[in-house]
Amino acid sequence: MMQHCFDYIDRNQGRFLQELQQFLRFPSVSGDAGYKEDVNQCALWLTDHLKKLGLDAHCISTRRHPIVRAATRGSASKRVILYGHYDVQPADPLDQWQTNPFKPDLRDGFIYARGATDDKGQLFAHIKAVESLLQTAGRLPCEVLFLLEGEEESGGSSLEEYIKAEKANLAADAVILSDTDMYDENTPALTYGLRGTVALEVKVKTAAFPVHSGSYGGAIGNPVTVLSRLISSCVGPDGRILIPGFYEDVRPLADWEKENIRRLDGRDRNLMAETGVRKIFGEPGFSTLERIWTRPTFEPNGISGGYEGEGMKTIIPAFAVAKISLRVVPDQNPQKIAGLVSQYLKSICPEYASLEVTVLSTSWPILFDVDNPMFQAGRKALQCGFGAEPVYMRCGGSIPVVNTFWQVLEKPVILMGFGLNSDGAHSTNERFKINNFIRGAKASAALIASL
Amino acid sequence: MMQHCFDYIDRNQGRFLQELQQFLRFPSVSGDAGYKEDVNQCALWLTDHLKKLGLDAHCISTRRHPIVRAATRGSASKRVILYGHYDVQPADPLDQWQTNPFKPDLRDGFIYARGATDDKGQLFAHIKAVESLLQTAGRLPCEVLFLLEGEEESGGSSLEEYIKAEKANLAADAVILSDTDMYDENTPALTYGLRGTVALEVKVKTAAFPVHSGSYGGAIGNPVTVLSRLISSCVGPDGRILIPGFYEDVRPLADWEKENIRRLDGRDRNLMAETGVRKIFGEPGFSTLERIWTRPTFEPNGISGGYEGEGMKTIIPAFAVAKISLRVVPDQNPQKIAGLVSQYLKSICPEYASLEVTVLSTSWPILFDVDNPMFQAGRKALQCGFGAEPVYMRCGGSIPVVNTFWQVLEKPVILMGFGLNSDGAHSTNERFKINNFIRGAKASAALIASL
Repeated sequence: MMQHCFDYIDRNQGRFLQELQQFLRFPSVSGDAGYKEDVNQCALWLTDHLKKLGLDAHCISTRRHPIVRAATRGSASKRVILYGHYDVQPADPLDQWQTNPFKPDLRDGFIYARGATDDKGQLFAHIKAVESLLQTAGRLPCEVLFLLEGEEESGGSSLEEYIKAEKANLAADAVILSDTDMYDENTPALTYGLRGTVALEVKVKTAAFPVHSGSYGGAIGNPVTVLSRLISSCVGPDGRILIPGFYEDVRPLADWEKENIRRLDGRDRNLMAETGVRKIFGEPGFSTLERIWTRPTFEPNGISGGYEGEGMKTIIPAFAVAKISLRVVPDQNPQKIAGLVSQYLKSICPEYASLEVTVLSTSWPILFDVDNPMFQAGRKALQCGFGAEPVYMRCGGSIPVVNTFWQVLEKPVILMGFGLNSDGAHSTNERFKINNFIRGAKASAALIASL
Repeated sequence: MMQHCFDYIDRNQGRFLQELQQFLRFPSVSGDAGYKEDVNQCALWLTDHLKKLGLDAHCISTRRHPIVRAATRGSASKRVILYGHYDVQPADPLDQWQTNPFKPDLRDGFIYARGATDDKGQLFAHIKAVESLLQTAGRLPCEVLFLLEGEEESGGSSLEEYIKAEKANLAADAVILSDTDMYDENTPALTYGLRGTVALEVKVKTAAFPVHSGSYGGAIGNPVTVLSRLISSCVGPDGRILIPGFYEDVRPLADWEKENIRRLDGRDRNLMAETGVRKIFGEPGFSTLERIWTRPTFEPNGISGGYEGEGMKTIIPAFAVAKISLRVVPDQNPQKIAGLVSQYLKSICPEYASLEVTVLSTSWPILFDVDNPMFQAGRKALQCGFGAEPVYMRCGGSIPVVNTFWQVLEKPVILMGFGLNSDGAHSTNERFKINNFIRGAKASAALIASL
């Protein structure tokens, strides 16, 4: 049966890619209110596409962006939920893209566009898997329920609320999600752990408005200097976080994890090539993969204040603001961490400045039990679709909805990613390898067929 | 004779203000290439205005913005140069202005506009003084030569080059310049010292482009964190500058200066009201006026990097940049200081980041001998125009052209300001007190008449 389905996938690859290009054309940037209607149009297109495949599809309004819900028709004793998100990160800085982020470009075996790998391309592989099974086998061995949200990139909570409210109607045997990476180009992976996040905005004010640095300089605090000191007081030159109590709840690695990571590690050279950094950096005493997968971080994502235009303006700015996100790891509690950071910043902010710390969002870190039988099904499906044995990984990123599924439905979440770390998710020139799109669709079909 | 002239000034106040409003309508922002033609139009208007008053006026092209040169006609054995600048600082942030910065508004005894006090309003007082003397006395006791530049706010050097080149034709007995402050609303001042500046752009890069903070966070240096550490390593929490050797050449205050400043000091409460800061801040061991007038500073004027839009973007930025200006004091050498700062920043920048330090401009600090006889003429003229005894001040700001006049022409520069510290130069809602405009014109007329 699988060979029949795989042939269909290979035969229809060209059309699949054309459809994916249509999907990628929507600038569904959920974090910027200016794109609200584009997010909506993208959801409507997706709903329509799923209807055409024969699914019972609905575009469900929420307080922010729609949820696309679509189920295969007909009765089945088992049900699997397929999660994905159709929203994307902002595309700026636009001048650093080789081609328009919302005009998908096929070149060198990749499809380039914002959202290509994160997550439109990956979720589309699952949709094409369901289409291929329906077209070749007629019906599926289980019901497939797509839950596709539009707020993942902007800390939205509509799907979380929906899952909690609809809990009784969402009973499922497993949840499948592809928003993680493969280990490398030829090695698929199952991800069993994710870092959580704490996203903050930190604003420092001194004067009520910008003042002349000649007339007042020396007698007025400078908010850029204060904010700089706050940031450099939170994280040391060696990358260690200096906030008191910060590391208290970090769970040490199990022996098998240390050994597994030791075997997988050694990607420092790749990492330098992927990012263009001249030297690897990080917390002393840990390897690169340990740092990315298992250690918490403190990262300013952006900073601004005062004059940023051409030339010079000799002012003392009135305020400076930083967007800062921390990655947290098991068993850190993100709310507790947000509190520790706020409290520490307040304790070191000088009296002549005022400080506002706003918690923009938090999400929990997660660790799944790898002995779970669903993982075995996932492992076999990846082997079948990619023709290679998958490895077990943790992931440096955060997928808050995984927590929601785990906490609300109490079912394991199979994290099987078809993307590569070098795909440029959240960055410029984001791309998705066409071969992984196709092999991912095959692995998804194999998993659904096996349930 | 002066009474006649003063009556003319009082009688024509309404028209003078209308003309000043026309002058202020030009957005002559010299530091932003987008306003180049506005700067040019402003210079042409000014030239035309001076011609109409009967002066021999020329708008002289330079590599950047024009110089307006205008001389009273007829022979005279003495010559005084009147300096001013018709260019202005950028007006942003525009949303913090109560009225449009380029639509002058008269309210509460002030004229509000970008450039009202710095320097269009002040230089216009001198123009109106010359007009009033010509209209009431027919001719002047000395030749008045206006040199009005359009690059003062953007570190330009065209006037400096012009003065050096035209040195032989610019012989003068004194230079008069109004780009400084009065001591307070009722006390005019002569300024005998200025701080110099060193303006730098500091750029830190790590990765070649922004990368996902989940996929790479922990193994890649963050340029915002690095730049924050560089800034907070240059200046301590108490305001002391930490760059090795920085204070080496600072000349201690003379006893009479200490005593003079002690008498004038005590404006902490005003300063808090003017700027809205909740607490005075500055280098330990110095009073507020000492800090502003006589001590060097290190001020970030602006900072930017990474995501500055709405919501959150979980990236590690590729670069971060700060515009930083230092104020330097006698006998610091601005070039030497620029070198010290660059060298120090390079020595502390971590290996995983690359650093670019660009020196945008420098200007020398200056101290005039207050026993100079020209100061006495200035003192008497201010007394006559304002009806109050002027005080001697130093100034926290920098007026590079004063150095040029002093070094090239070897003539004393009389710094008699008609503005107030609370006028908001370089800030939003900049204004100029109408009464000071009028009293300034009278003082200028009295000084010219006395030479």
